[in-house]
Amino acid sequence: MRYSQLYTKTLKVSKSYRSVNATLLIKGGFIDQTMAGVYSFLPLGLRVLNKIEQITREEMDKIATEVLLPALSPKKLWIQTGRLNTVDVLMKTAGANEISKSKNTNEYVLNCTHEDVITPLVQKFNTSYKDFPVALYQIQSKFRNEARAKSGLLRGREFRMKDLYSFHVSESDLKEYYEKVKAAYVKVYERVGLGEDTVVTLASGGDFTKAYSHEFQTLCESGEDLIFFDETTNTYYNKEVAPSQAPAIDYDGQQHELKEVYGEHITGIDALVKFLQVPATKCVKTLIYQTETDEVIVAAVRGNYEINEIKLRNVVGCNELHLASEAAVKKTTTAQLGYAGLLNLPAGIRVFVDESIKDHINFECGANKDNYHSINVNWGRDVQKPEQFYDIKVAQVGDLNPANGKPFQVKKTSEVGNIFPLGTKYTKAFNYTFTDQDGQEKFPYMGSYGLGTSRLMGVLVEKFHDDKGILWPSSVAPFQVHLVSLTGGEQAAQKLYQQLTAQHIDVLWDDRAVSAGEKFAAADLIGVPVRLIVSAKTGEQVEWKKRAESTIELISVDELLNRLDAKKL
Amino acid sequence: MRYSQLYTKTLKVSKSYRSVNATLLIKGGFIDQTMAGVYSFLPLGLRVLNKIEQITREEMDKIATEVLLPALSPKKLWIQTGRLNTVDVLMKTAGANEISKSKNTNEYVLNCTHEDVITPLVQKFNTSYKDFPVALYQIQSKFRNEARAKSGLLRGREFRMKDLYSFHVSESDLKEYYEKVKAAYVKVYERVGLGEDTVVTLASGGDFTKAYSHEFQTLCESGEDLIFFDETTNTYYNKEVAPSQAPAIDYDGQQHELKEVYGEHITGIDALVKFLQVPATKCVKTLIYQTETDEVIVAAVRGNYEINEIKLRNVVGCNELHLASEAAVKKTTTAQLGYAGLLNLPAGIRVFVDESIKDHINFECGANKDNYHSINVNWGRDVQKPEQFYDIKVAQVGDLNPANGKPFQVKKTSEVGNIFPLGTKYTKAFNYTFTDQDGQEKFPYMGSYGLGTSRLMGVLVEKFHDDKGILWPSSVAPFQVHLVSLTGGEQAAQKLYQQLTAQHIDVLWDDRAVSAGEKFAAADLIGVPVRLIVSAKTGEQVEWKKRAESTIELISVDELLNRLDAKKL
Repeated sequence: MRYSQLYTKTLKVSKSYRSVNATLLIKGGFIDQTMAGVYSFLPLGLRVLNKIEQITREEMDKIATEVLLPALSPKKLWIQTGRLNTVDVLMKTAGANEISKSKNTNEYVLNCTHEDVITPLVQKFNTSYKDFPVALYQIQSKFRNEARAKSGLLRGREFRMKDLYSFHVSESDLKEYYEKVKAAYVKVYERVGLGEDTVVTLASGGDFTKAYSHEFQTLCESGEDLIFFDETTNTYYNKEVAPSQAPAIDYDGQQHELKEVYGEHITGIDALVKFLQVPATKCVKTLIYQTETDEVIVAAVRGNYEINEIKLRNVVGCNELHLASEAAVKKTTTAQLGYAGLLNLPAGIRVFVDESIKDHINFECGANKDNYHSINVNWGRDVQKPEQFYDIKVAQVGDLNPANGKPFQVKKTSEVGNIFPLGTKYTKAFNYTFTDQDGQEKFPYMGSYGLGTSRLMGVLVEKFHDDKGILWPSSVAPFQVHLVSLTGGEQAAQKLYQQLTAQHIDVLWDDRAVSAGEKFAAADLIGVPVRLIVSAKTGEQVEWKKRAESTIELISVDELLNRLDAKKL
Repeated sequence: MRYSQLYTKTLKVSKSYRSVNATLLIKGGFIDQTMAGVYSFLPLGLRVLNKIEQITREEMDKIATEVLLPALSPKKLWIQTGRLNTVDVLMKTAGANEISKSKNTNEYVLNCTHEDVITPLVQKFNTSYKDFPVALYQIQSKFRNEARAKSGLLRGREFRMKDLYSFHVSESDLKEYYEKVKAAYVKVYERVGLGEDTVVTLASGGDFTKAYSHEFQTLCESGEDLIFFDETTNTYYNKEVAPSQAPAIDYDGQQHELKEVYGEHITGIDALVKFLQVPATKCVKTLIYQTETDEVIVAAVRGNYEINEIKLRNVVGCNELHLASEAAVKKTTTAQLGYAGLLNLPAGIRVFVDESIKDHINFECGANKDNYHSINVNWGRDVQKPEQFYDIKVAQVGDLNPANGKPFQVKKTSEVGNIFPLGTKYTKAFNYTFTDQDGQEKFPYMGSYGLGTSRLMGVLVEKFHDDKGILWPSSVAPFQVHLVSLTGGEQAAQKLYQQLTAQHIDVLWDDRAVSAGEKFAAADLIGVPVRLIVSAKTGEQVEWKKRAESTIELISVDELLNRLDAKKL
């Protein structure tokens, strides 16, 4: 394609966006920002997106069948699964003006995922064990009511997604299929050029299963995630589920006198650290939670950690957990929010203490009294030492791997896919049963598998760029070669363009009447893997340069065609 | 593909939908209804949709460049064009629950069309006359807040659409490009099998231009539109813009005495006809309108017609027209709504009377007095005969063509596309100018061009079906052949399936263990153009039958391959 016919322009003056991917993709004319988190794909960007989606489609076609589900769905489906009021990014629609509302007052859900749509669909068709397994996927736009959307294609309010749903007669059948999907995902990442740097990571199974779900995480310096590598089992964990052991703290061993310090309106670790002049590591963070049965429990962790509600839920043995209401906090601690501690708690209340404070001495915690904090608290002397300590914290950099007591290898990553063994959560919600071989009515087992195709495009840019622009892997590059014609080379370029096109090689020919420098800058920014120059000086030959390398070679057209042979690229 | 692997089932028991296309497509397993006006495309349906969209894409690629615009857009764009509160099918989004709303309180527009998105996009890139023309298209899902959605794929709340937008330096350039689009559309209809039955029809240009827009209308017995053919100019009009002359009425010639008849709460033509025992043709329907300057005008038409607001607006010479407020009606007629007539109207008020009542004698009209109707009204004697009569009615079946005074040929049709010469409406709204060759800042001229791809799929079914099922044109059929294996033919079928697949022929092989009757019924319902049967009886041969014909032939595999040669199908 001729540059002059391609609807795009690398923008000379482009404002900088917070993310590298948005900045480069907008500057390069791949996408345009319609609003925060919502992008238009221009021809150059659509070419890349289409290549990513076609690779995804080809791998999915080997294990599933493609469908196209709608973006809208009736609220009643989401009410039936209990998700209408709990999915925190869910959007709904309504008439945009009075005339529209007067014609149709209904509101619909704008889907961010499709379990709630596909389960009743499959329920209509698949009612006998003979009808399983079922595996349907689609590639389309999804919607999330994101609070902030500052990461370009990594976190969109509207984004492209491949989602696959599978249904099985048994948990073992689901597990077997789940491994097939994992392998298909690995293949997709390999094909788009992320194979070596993408790892399968254990993640939370969500609130409906104690099994792990799996994330595919790409190692990436600008990544927003942290993953923890356990070399003893060769396992990656995301920070939600990584087991963690806090590093030890040096103590002088001397117990000091327990005191209550008055600090009016001083709440929260940061304020305390400043006010008491103690390090956060010597503070204890105490939080009051309620379970689904309204049991009030207490959790405590070293001050520089966060409580991990997933780990805590497992330890408590409950299904739901939320921070206690103000009234419940008052009843438990006799104080307002912000002064909870471990002293003088009501008898019989269950207290879960993280291992990070097992050996603490002279520590700080709330005094369970308005405006007061206890300092120099010591286990045994001031408060009974728990029989058992737990791991209920969010892992962080510097933590030790409990398996071997050595510091964790922690890596920055960007998530490029996740898969969930859903079990029977949704089939039960829709009372969807099938007749098994033994004549029994059973709930099908279900898995769901997501891969954000536009997000993947963003991760590729985050991963493959330098200070001049993007370096696309050839499988997803918008073109195979970027042909630059300089003064005197127009006719040779025209001829070469025709030759390459006849060989079905995707060429972007910069035929503009602009300076050589401008053309080179555009080529570097757009990031096609191979740049060719034809000029008065190159004669019968062509100047060859790979985007990722600095070597420039003068080669014959025959050699060029040989190098561009699809099988060799 | 094997039927058993295709995720679909023809449904034995299927409720009947109001439209033929929904009934057959759902029964045949092409689509599933998620809710009224919103459908999931199952594998069989997605194959058809993809073929339609690919044909559309190929024709559009010859005249434009593909992009992908988002479904969401910020409200401010629609405020800028003045359409946020006027587009009667516009939808918006919001957080679906309290948690979601607390994270992001913004509302967005869910686009039903993209002029408001693409104009500011093109404005960023194209600022010099050298940058024109610009023609960008996309194929994606659109959203409309339809009051009723009972026509299957013909009228969806969510539907698939190809929309193209073009920008030009001059009106003449727009006109030239507009003709190219027309030709490309014709090509699409030809390729999907609707060429012979699809005609270009003049339609209203909307409220921003007096130029016609154009609809592509497919002749179809179940069509929801009526078009009028003017054989003197070889022109088709839709009913909004068709010129019309009402057929003459026989009168006895005798003028009767003018009377006022008391009819308490009798308003509207139907009630009047019943109450006064007069035909609707002898009544006069009088309506009071207000223009954008709040001028009150009166329009009157023969009782069995509707006022055509587009024609009326042109005759009045105003840009906007709406039915007068109750207060304005009262002020004009001294009566409440429902008793407006032509007698005793205020002096100076402009009255526009349709030609359908030019020769009326002894006619009925409201008495401009609560609960009273005038009968035996006569021009000249009771009310001044207007100097000029107009054509301000919606054309209907039985009308004469004013060009030759002969009855119009009226045809039932279904719309399959429409194109609009928008002029500078949107570029002016965004204050989008370019620098022309003469150094002047000018507004680009714009066109927009829509083709509903899922609607087209629905129209194809409405057009091509019989009482057993669908008859797909081969270019959009989900498969080229439907192979049915009967008892004893399994091995031969397996071999033939492999042979055909190796020849890149799309085969649907019904390999199920069900009765021959069930397989034949499924083949007729699904509507693949050619059905093949292999059984114990067919031996080395194959039974060939076209879906549209009743002839059954026993042919050799060589002959089969010859007939299926893509070029000959």
